[in-house]
Amino acid sequence: MTQTAAGCELVFLPLGGSGEIGMNFNAYGYGSADDREWIIADCGVLFGREANTPGVDVIMPDIRFLAEQRQNVLGMVLTHAHEDHIGAIAHLWPQLRCPLFATPFTARLIEEKLAEAGLDEEVAVTVVPISGHVVLGPFEIDYITLTHSIPESNALAIRTPLGVVVHTGDWKLDPEPLLGSVSDAPALRKLGNEGVLALVCDSTNALSAGHSGSEAAVRESLISLIAGLKGRIAVTGFASNVARLQSIAHAARAAGREIVLVGRSMHRIVNAARDVGCLTDFPASVSEDEAVSLPPDRVLFLCTGSQGEARAALARIAAGEHNIKLGRGDTVIFSSRIIPGNELAIFELQNRLAALGVSVLTEKDHFVHTSGHPCRDELEQMYRWVRPHIAVPVHGERRHMEEHAQLARSLQVPEAIVLENGQMLRLAPGRAQLVDETPAGRLHLDGRILVSEGDGYARARRSLGFAGLIAVTLVLDHKGRIAAEPTILFEGIPDPVRQPVNAALGEALRRHNPRRADEAALKEVVRLAVRRAAANAWGKKPVTRVEVIRL
Amino acid sequence: MTQTAAGCELVFLPLGGSGEIGMNFNAYGYGSADDREWIIADCGVLFGREANTPGVDVIMPDIRFLAEQRQNVLGMVLTHAHEDHIGAIAHLWPQLRCPLFATPFTARLIEEKLAEAGLDEEVAVTVVPISGHVVLGPFEIDYITLTHSIPESNALAIRTPLGVVVHTGDWKLDPEPLLGSVSDAPALRKLGNEGVLALVCDSTNALSAGHSGSEAAVRESLISLIAGLKGRIAVTGFASNVARLQSIAHAARAAGREIVLVGRSMHRIVNAARDVGCLTDFPASVSEDEAVSLPPDRVLFLCTGSQGEARAALARIAAGEHNIKLGRGDTVIFSSRIIPGNELAIFELQNRLAALGVSVLTEKDHFVHTSGHPCRDELEQMYRWVRPHIAVPVHGERRHMEEHAQLARSLQVPEAIVLENGQMLRLAPGRAQLVDETPAGRLHLDGRILVSEGDGYARARRSLGFAGLIAVTLVLDHKGRIAAEPTILFEGIPDPVRQPVNAALGEALRRHNPRRADEAALKEVVRLAVRRAAANAWGKKPVTRVEVIRL
Repeated sequence: MTQTAAGCELVFLPLGGSGEIGMNFNAYGYGSADDREWIIADCGVLFGREANTPGVDVIMPDIRFLAEQRQNVLGMVLTHAHEDHIGAIAHLWPQLRCPLFATPFTARLIEEKLAEAGLDEEVAVTVVPISGHVVLGPFEIDYITLTHSIPESNALAIRTPLGVVVHTGDWKLDPEPLLGSVSDAPALRKLGNEGVLALVCDSTNALSAGHSGSEAAVRESLISLIAGLKGRIAVTGFASNVARLQSIAHAARAAGREIVLVGRSMHRIVNAARDVGCLTDFPASVSEDEAVSLPPDRVLFLCTGSQGEARAALARIAAGEHNIKLGRGDTVIFSSRIIPGNELAIFELQNRLAALGVSVLTEKDHFVHTSGHPCRDELEQMYRWVRPHIAVPVHGERRHMEEHAQLARSLQVPEAIVLENGQMLRLAPGRAQLVDETPAGRLHLDGRILVSEGDGYARARRSLGFAGLIAVTLVLDHKGRIAAEPTILFEGIPDPVRQPVNAALGEALRRHNPRRADEAALKEVVRLAVRRAAANAWGKKPVTRVEVIRL
Repeated sequence: MTQTAAGCELVFLPLGGSGEIGMNFNAYGYGSADDREWIIADCGVLFGREANTPGVDVIMPDIRFLAEQRQNVLGMVLTHAHEDHIGAIAHLWPQLRCPLFATPFTARLIEEKLAEAGLDEEVAVTVVPISGHVVLGPFEIDYITLTHSIPESNALAIRTPLGVVVHTGDWKLDPEPLLGSVSDAPALRKLGNEGVLALVCDSTNALSAGHSGSEAAVRESLISLIAGLKGRIAVTGFASNVARLQSIAHAARAAGREIVLVGRSMHRIVNAARDVGCLTDFPASVSEDEAVSLPPDRVLFLCTGSQGEARAALARIAAGEHNIKLGRGDTVIFSSRIIPGNELAIFELQNRLAALGVSVLTEKDHFVHTSGHPCRDELEQMYRWVRPHIAVPVHGERRHMEEHAQLARSLQVPEAIVLENGQMLRLAPGRAQLVDETPAGRLHLDGRILVSEGDGYARARRSLGFAGLIAVTLVLDHKGRIAAEPTILFEGIPDPVRQPVNAALGEALRRHNPRRADEAALKEVVRLAVRRAAANAWGKKPVTRVEVIRL
């Protein structure tokens, strides 16, 4: 091993993705505690949930710790193009202003995002060839091809003077991925033979036994399923799964159906994949307008909207708000899984389709989907190849990461460590050890404004959602006397609550003695009286505000 | 068939449960269109979801159509004691004031609810023996024992002068239900031989192939699973599944563990089941206080909270807010399924347990649960026994009911009809036919107040949740001039939105000319200016209110 300066350490710092499946953001630091150089692996978003974070579409990590030392951030290396790995770049790059590195398909999709954000002139995206190599200060990084549910997913072999880290990104072991090469087992085995310090690895399916299966098997199943259907067919799925799109297109053509791409993402991804050359065998599609004149059993619509997104193509079709119409005798295939939290929206969509008489087929009843993440047998295979000294599960909720760590221990990995976002782990030298807790939190993209979760706007709105609002405005003269009839605003509060609240307000104001109460005291008296009356009448406590206008 | 008066019809009217799994409320009417007598089968709630109906715990049907003719409502017949079948009684009975009929265990739980609501003095609950008989005007009703995930689930054979309807309630075909008798196949077969007009049947699992399985098999699995575990064990599940509670208790005793009931529902259900004699073989439990002094592997906690409910026992244990502590080496078994919509709450609970080092076992990885509803093989069996002329799927979302209807048609049932709540179906005489659409909707229990969904309080709060609120209060003198600095309230709105909104308000008021604008026009000008400024700065449109105080 290369000679290292005294005090040099190799540390790992996840700022996102350790505790949630989403917003992956992992940093590796090399140097002394006072002077580290950093690289970042991935920069993704998490999707907000109306129940928890109403009004927030996407969530990303708070990276202030690295932003404050951005002169030491050497670059950001992207493993693949899923939103939970690249979706935050356009929002967070201005805090870092570092160079980006990605393989062709990923780079193309990043550039599209940067262009939308008006950042394309400023940001340098270096295109790394498949199985390419990047050197950033003390980090020498090899891209290693893995299979996943998107083209060009890569592990990173990160060589440092203190040892090699294998950072898997998202992966599975698909013996027939249909697009791209199979996972590069020889490279992983070779790394294992050379000696790997740490494996930082995908935990998504650590709770699932067995093997995730192959895209080729899904293709066979789709071909035979689609061949047997009459009427119109719509298939919905994740647009980024280009191999799946290709399988569906092949199944359509095998059944004598024209393929119609419906929804902006479908066009965007197919174009990107074609342009960079990772999709060479996709049949010509017909336009929505052309499709309308085709007989029902000569057409297959490939639609966005598998997660029940209200503005996506399938939801608009189901609502009758789209040129494409489906009805009795037609079939919709969900070639996708349910992302947790989307159940009710997806079921509502499926109910609308059922009400139109459409048959709805899903992975629950037909083999139309396979996961892109490693199940336990695949994780075992990876550990047998890489044989790391330290296992660091990432890309999971706590339950997935703990299970993953248990699995690693059962495979005799000497150290398996579950981190929370913001915990800095020293990987070398010496035993793996927590050496710092950095500020870590979440940013909400609230409308167009990036705010800290800690600012509490979404939490405040959640309170409004639960129990509404009562706002009282009082007008006082210069002696502090009530000078006009106050206003009282009720929002989201049942009518029967009004009368008792009005009465309580009147009573509180009648007791008001301007000589004995200052403005703050008056506001608090009124607030408590109003809130108590609402709680008594309703059983819930609304957000209660009192404003005073002085004449 | 008995001679019937001219113009007499038998109709079926679901007011709840046709379109959702929950709030079951089904009415059968007999008589002429102008003069029908009614019976009601079940009166349940649906649980609210924070994302869709924030601040609403339970939802129930709007029964105004029957309430307006309550003198013609002969009685309410309850099939079993699940909340989605009896949970609305205490809220809706005052609108109907009819007699209630239920088997002993169900009657006991209804009486407890009525007592809590202070209605026990007013309401008559007639206890029907197992396989008992109720006569209500032209309706002669036989209770027929079925198996389900609660003691004493019953189908109703409803005999009328125009034919027999079999109303299944909730059921499965469990060959070894552990508590109570097996499903009464001879009675169903006999009805089929006599001729059944209509089968009104549970659709919950119509999308699931095969058979739902048996409680006895779950018991065997739990016994062997629990025998192999060390450390503390907590098992959570649905308290109303008394057979399951008994299985868990047996498994505990077989492993030399004391059983501890944790959570109010556990005690309530076990006591009720014991009192009415349907649970005779439940081991003595020890108290939480006694349990604390027992060695970890001598105790099993049977806990409420399998759906991630924040105030239930398991959530409080996971949060460290309970006398019972769990940690590394301990195990929690979720002997339950995830009710759709509860995923994120349950996963959050499991993540908290995982972070404590607790092993979490669920039906995903271990055989610890079986559904209480019929899968497709069981539905087929029911249709073979009953051989109805008309199939009316109920107790399902649209996708379940459509699939159920398809299944019935494939079994050569002549008519299979999917209804929406409020649609009145004539079952006889003649072909089944929609004869009326009655007012149907939902009531929200909002705090303690029952409001109509149509009143829009939850919808208004959902809007507040999405984009917050801006409220402006203006003070005008008697000439309509601005008489004081206005107040502006921002709730749930990011700080950067304030300045542009304040500026827009100032600008709008500077343009205000009291001679040329009335109060309504001023309010609208201000509202639009504020809302537009917020939308421009934020990308979202908050709820915007303008109040005026006149001096």
